[in-house]
Amino acid sequence: MNRAHNFNPGPAALPLEVLQKVQSELLDFAGTGMSILEVSHRSKDYEAVHNAAQSLMRELLGIPENYHILFLGGGASLQFSMVPMNLLGPGVSADYVITGAWSQKAFKEAKLVGNPRVAATTEEDGKFTRIPKQEELQLDPQARYVHITSNNTIFGTQWHTFPNTGNVPIVADMSSDFLWRPFDIKPFGLIYGGAQKNLGPAGVTVVIIRDDLLALCREDIPIILRFKTHAKDNSLYNTPPVFAIYIVKLVLEWIKEKGGLAWMEQENRAKAARIYGVIDSYPEFYRAPVAKDSRSFMNAVFRLPSEELENKFLEGAKAHRFVGLKGHRSVGGIRVSMYNYVPKSSVEELARYMEEFARAHA
Amino acid sequence: MNRAHNFNPGPAALPLEVLQKVQSELLDFAGTGMSILEVSHRSKDYEAVHNAAQSLMRELLGIPENYHILFLGGGASLQFSMVPMNLLGPGVSADYVITGAWSQKAFKEAKLVGNPRVAATTEEDGKFTRIPKQEELQLDPQARYVHITSNNTIFGTQWHTFPNTGNVPIVADMSSDFLWRPFDIKPFGLIYGGAQKNLGPAGVTVVIIRDDLLALCREDIPIILRFKTHAKDNSLYNTPPVFAIYIVKLVLEWIKEKGGLAWMEQENRAKAARIYGVIDSYPEFYRAPVAKDSRSFMNAVFRLPSEELENKFLEGAKAHRFVGLKGHRSVGGIRVSMYNYVPKSSVEELARYMEEFARAHA
Repeated sequence: MNRAHNFNPGPAALPLEVLQKVQSELLDFAGTGMSILEVSHRSKDYEAVHNAAQSLMRELLGIPENYHILFLGGGASLQFSMVPMNLLGPGVSADYVITGAWSQKAFKEAKLVGNPRVAATTEEDGKFTRIPKQEELQLDPQARYVHITSNNTIFGTQWHTFPNTGNVPIVADMSSDFLWRPFDIKPFGLIYGGAQKNLGPAGVTVVIIRDDLLALCREDIPIILRFKTHAKDNSLYNTPPVFAIYIVKLVLEWIKEKGGLAWMEQENRAKAARIYGVIDSYPEFYRAPVAKDSRSFMNAVFRLPSEELENKFLEGAKAHRFVGLKGHRSVGGIRVSMYNYVPKSSVEELARYMEEFARAHA
Repeated sequence: MNRAHNFNPGPAALPLEVLQKVQSELLDFAGTGMSILEVSHRSKDYEAVHNAAQSLMRELLGIPENYHILFLGGGASLQFSMVPMNLLGPGVSADYVITGAWSQKAFKEAKLVGNPRVAATTEEDGKFTRIPKQEELQLDPQARYVHITSNNTIFGTQWHTFPNTGNVPIVADMSSDFLWRPFDIKPFGLIYGGAQKNLGPAGVTVVIIRDDLLALCREDIPIILRFKTHAKDNSLYNTPPVFAIYIVKLVLEWIKEKGGLAWMEQENRAKAARIYGVIDSYPEFYRAPVAKDSRSFMNAVFRLPSEELENKFLEGAKAHRFVGLKGHRSVGGIRVSMYNYVPKSSVEELARYMEEFARAHA
C-alpha cells in the first residue's frame, strides 16, 4: 500500500488500524449479517457503539457526569447558530473573542439571533497572528457565556492557556484541536466540534454541554435545534449519523490503546516541535507570521521568500506524496496540518523535505 | 457470507455490490493513497463524486435544470423546520396534508415558525389507514406550498397518485420512498428525504428545490439554515457528509446499471405483490388495516389474530435471519419494510415463511 502523507486541513488522516478494522467488518458488523451502514439506530448492536463512543470520550477527557455528550449532524457551522439560538434571548448577552475567520463567523451568526459583544479581537490589518492575553479581554460578568475558537486553522494560532472568565462559562469551538491533549473541562459550559479533523470522518459533530447551561436552553425554537431534545433522547431523537459515530468510537478506542490523551499530547508536541524546529532553523527562508507563544500545534503556517518558491515547494511535495500543504486561499503560503492521526513518520519526511528545500534554495 | 434478510424500517439494506465496492477501495480511494474518509471535500477527487451523485440523480429522475439538488446534514427532521423557516413568514401560509406521524411532526414544526393550515387529515381514532382523496383536500390557492408525506412508514400508506394542487407547488417528504419509481417532478417545488431508506446510509439528506421557490426563500435566518446558502455553494458551504454522499453516488450508479427507475419500480412492485398476495390469501389470519388503494409498496403492515401469535411469528423469524419485522411501538403488529435494496430473494423467503406460519397456526 502506498499511503499518501495526508496534511489536509480537514477532513484529515485517520489511523490506518481504524480504517483496516472498518474494512474488515464492513460486510458483517458484529455478526449481524449486515453492514454497519445497514443496521437500525434502534438496535442493541448500534446502541452499544453509540454508548461506547460516549463513555470512551468521557473516560479519555475526564468528563464529569454533569455534562451531556451529544452526537449531531449538520457540522460545526450549524453550532455557530444553535449555540446562540439556545442560549441567547431578550436581555441575555454573550462575549465573543475573535481570533480568526471561524470566530468571526460564529459571532456573525450570534448577532443574527441575539446581541453578543466582542470581548477582544486580535485582528490587525485583516490578519490574526496571535491569541489575546488575559488582560486584553474585556469581559462582561453578566454574559451568559464567553465564546472562543480554541485553534485557528487558517491563521495557525491556538489557545495554550484558556482564559479566566470568572463565573461565566466558556463555550469553545474545538473542531480543529479536540482531543489533542488532556485539559480541565470545568471552566467550559459547552464544547462543540466537527469530527473531521481530530475525531473521525466528516458527518458528525460532538457537543458537550454542562447541566446548568442545558437548563437555561430555550424551548421555543425548532425541536431539532434544541440541545434539550438531543440530551433527553441521548442523541437518538432522530436517526443519527450512525457510520460516523461508529468510526468515532473506533478512533477513541485506538487512542485509549495507544496510551490515552497523555500519549496523544506527546505525539503532537513532538510533531509540532519538528516542523517549527525547521522553520526556526531557517528564519530567513521560512517566515512564520504567528507570535511564538500563539503557535498552533495543529496547523503550522509559513511563507517562503517568494510565491514562485512556494509554488515550487508545493510542486516538489507531490513527488513525496505530501497532500494538502497549500495555505488557505485567504492567506496564501504553506500550511502544515498535523492533526492527531497524521503519523510522526509523515511529519519527519516533510521536515526533511523542508530542510533540503531550504538548503537548495536559500 | 451469511447475509441477514434486512427488513429494517431504516437505516435499511444497501446493495451488496455497493458494499463490496466500498470495502475494496476503503484504504485507497481513486488512487489517492487515502481513504474516502480522509480526503478533502475541496479536492478534485471528491468534487467528482459530489457532482456525479447530483448528475446521476438528475438523470435517473429526469430532474430539469431549474431544480437544485442539495446534500445536507442533520436528517429529514431538520427539514421539518428548514422548509417553513425558509418559506413562511408574515402573511404567508402553507397547507399540510396529515397522513401519519411524520406529517404531524412536520406540521408541528411549521406552526412554530409560521401559520400553516391543515388541508386534510385521515386520522380516525388516532390511526391513519388511508391517503385522502382529491375531493377531500381543502386547498388554499394562496398557500405558498402544499406539504405531503409521500409514504407513511409507521401506518403503511403511500400516495399512489399525487394530489392536484393547481398552481401551488407540492413540498414532499420522500424519505421513505424516494427513487422507488419514476415520477413527474414538475408539480413539486421541493422534495426532501433522509437517505437511510432508499438512497444510502444515515447521515445525508437530499433536498431538491425549484428555482422559483428558492427565490422566495428567506435570507434573515441563520446562514446554515438557508437553502440559498447551499444552492449557491453547491452544498459545499461547509464540510458536507462526504462518505454518505459517496455511497449515494455508488447506489445511484448501481440503479443505473440495473436498468434505472423503470427497473426499480418493477422490482418493488413484484416484492410488494408477493407480500400483499400472502396477506390477501389469508385474510382471516393476516389482517391488514390499510385501505387497499392506499397500501404502501415500501412498508406492509399487518396484525395476526393475537399478540401471542405475533410474538411467535417474530420469534420464528429469527431462525430465518429476518431482521426488523416488529411494527412501530405506537401501532404494534408486524411491519415488512421492503425498501429499494431489499433483494427479491429475501422477500420470497419471508413470503414462504408467512404462508407456512399461517397454515400452521390458522
